[in-house]
Amino acid sequence: MQLKDLPTPCLVLDKGILERNLRRMSDAVHRHGVALRPHLKTAKSAAVARLATTGEKGGITVSTLAEAEYFAEHGFRDILLANALPPQKLSRAEALASQGVTVTLVTDNESMASAIAAHPGRFSALVEIDSGDRRTGVSADSDDLIKIAKALGDKLVGVMTHAGHSYSCRTTDCVADVAEDERLSVVTAAARLREAGLTCDVVSVGSTPTMTHARNLDGVTEARPGVYMFQDLFQAEIGSCEKRDIAMTVLASVIGTNVDGGRMLIDAGAIALSKDRSTQATEHDAGYGEIRDIDNGYAFGKCIIDRAYQEHGAAACDAAVLKDIQIGTRVRVAPNHACLTAAAHDRYYIVDGSSEVVDVWDRVNGW
Amino acid sequence: MQLKDLPTPCLVLDKGILERNLRRMSDAVHRHGVALRPHLKTAKSAAVARLATTGEKGGITVSTLAEAEYFAEHGFRDILLANALPPQKLSRAEALASQGVTVTLVTDNESMASAIAAHPGRFSALVEIDSGDRRTGVSADSDDLIKIAKALGDKLVGVMTHAGHSYSCRTTDCVADVAEDERLSVVTAAARLREAGLTCDVVSVGSTPTMTHARNLDGVTEARPGVYMFQDLFQAEIGSCEKRDIAMTVLASVIGTNVDGGRMLIDAGAIALSKDRSTQATEHDAGYGEIRDIDNGYAFGKCIIDRAYQEHGAAACDAAVLKDIQIGTRVRVAPNHACLTAAAHDRYYIVDGSSEVVDVWDRVNGW
Repeated sequence: MQLKDLPTPCLVLDKGILERNLRRMSDAVHRHGVALRPHLKTAKSAAVARLATTGEKGGITVSTLAEAEYFAEHGFRDILLANALPPQKLSRAEALASQGVTVTLVTDNESMASAIAAHPGRFSALVEIDSGDRRTGVSADSDDLIKIAKALGDKLVGVMTHAGHSYSCRTTDCVADVAEDERLSVVTAAARLREAGLTCDVVSVGSTPTMTHARNLDGVTEARPGVYMFQDLFQAEIGSCEKRDIAMTVLASVIGTNVDGGRMLIDAGAIALSKDRSTQATEHDAGYGEIRDIDNGYAFGKCIIDRAYQEHGAAACDAAVLKDIQIGTRVRVAPNHACLTAAAHDRYYIVDGSSEVVDVWDRVNGW
Repeated sequence: MQLKDLPTPCLVLDKGILERNLRRMSDAVHRHGVALRPHLKTAKSAAVARLATTGEKGGITVSTLAEAEYFAEHGFRDILLANALPPQKLSRAEALASQGVTVTLVTDNESMASAIAAHPGRFSALVEIDSGDRRTGVSADSDDLIKIAKALGDKLVGVMTHAGHSYSCRTTDCVADVAEDERLSVVTAAARLREAGLTCDVVSVGSTPTMTHARNLDGVTEARPGVYMFQDLFQAEIGSCEKRDIAMTVLASVIGTNVDGGRMLIDAGAIALSKDRSTQATEHDAGYGEIRDIDNGYAFGKCIIDRAYQEHGAAACDAAVLKDIQIGTRVRVAPNHACLTAAAHDRYYIVDGSSEVVDVWDRVNGW
């Protein structure tokens, strides 16, 4: 089957680019002597997870219980659920642990830590540290850190953080500085736990930008980047990759053109692309995605989707090239934010440097 | 089962509010002597469609072939596919038509009109008119209108438009003016087709704001509103409804609180809520949604989700009420834009004015 035979809109994943991205991150993390525990929140695919863990220790990170259950079914036995759970979800985590899966939870709350400690489920837990993102986590120097760690009792195994604020950087130097904040926060927290006589075997960090540009990861035991597998326009913009490293695109069909107005309309809109506007705050605003030709090139010049309706994407294009476009022409859209674009789709059509579809990989959605 | 027993995040649909919204729109449209052909792009649910077509002629509108196929399977026999197709999708439309479903397509392109005319499928087609939205459609006074209509041959049955620019209104007077532009555009186009000796039985318009506030619909034969079934914060903001008319909410669990910072963290983020920011351009920016208590009230004061990460929603709340919130507390989120929020979910948990879950209704996603 060829790309042109696929129903649109759909996700196209280039295996060669994916494997190159996987190698690059594996090398970056191993250079610092740290284990890679890839975050599957972007890919949500067992086939991708198998490639991402080849040559690694096999542990993975997930963002939802639905992902944890899916990957457990597909044979993954060491799963870190990096998003804090409410107490009522512990029974689903327990069901996995009782099947022999090593399930590690995170918390930044003392009452939840007590609930985890009191729960019969055989899971482990990390205290979540705020390394500057101000989203979740406790400060590494707070009294709460020790209280939460103690409340976890013998389920405590370490600390973790996510330096989401690396996304506000626009230079690799800035990212490297955030990576150092990220490292210091968990290393400091780990030292405090150990001084207090508490267990801290796991010192976990992770974001694609910081793991790409960290100067050193001394004291860290594992890294949890995720979007590096696919990359996207935002990651290219903040220096995590080049645009040619974007492995996942949305295949779409042209459903209208207005040559005089320099506009193209495609059958991928706000659902198929998401309404994420990550690149809006960067130097090169890519709207709701950048349109390429079916071969993933720029035969059409520069086309940016500047309006996204539920099922229509409307792009401002170079009028000189629009005249070559017919209704029905297939295009590929490089996404702003791969994690959210992928979320509306249930499968990947796999190519490997050509327009031949060599495989179809499923993905898990929902919660 | 009670709301508090549901897995979070999930969609909660209040049947009583839904039925009130359905009645109100049915009355509004019938007042003008026009048929209601509800657009199912928001609900994507056979159970909702059955309620929405009760007492109507039974015809529905959809936005994707996946919806058309789903509703045909559920017994709907008169389906308008209101989004233009590329030629390669005509075979799926034909498959439905060959099962005896009345399938009506839309086009604003002469070459596509010729492709529809030449296709063996027994479907009908409408010429899409631009009534001011500048998204799709040809102008009612353009030469293209007659060319496209003629190209459709004996598949031509009429004209349609969607006044999406009603969404830029902030007063009901403005909406009523747009409704008149919408009406005039198709009535003008219909008159031109008839003068040219062409068929124009169908004169179709539709958007929730314009169908709510139109002063008259003389010459129009059918109306295609969609989001009125569920309503949302944006529709409330532009005067299509009151906030109490919002029938669909997202049930979520609190996974973190920061009483001093006046913040609450829930397990519904950018996927469960969408990154739609429709209300940003209105007087009351509701961020990524407005948090209510599990009874759909305001026991927590005013809480707006101002940051949406993949699986975390972070809300700015009244610190005085945050102290009553525990990890695990359930909340409900009123969405900015119901169509996009619903898109990440595969079912509705139905309530009817209480916290008891009385039914579960499926929905169709994908393409």
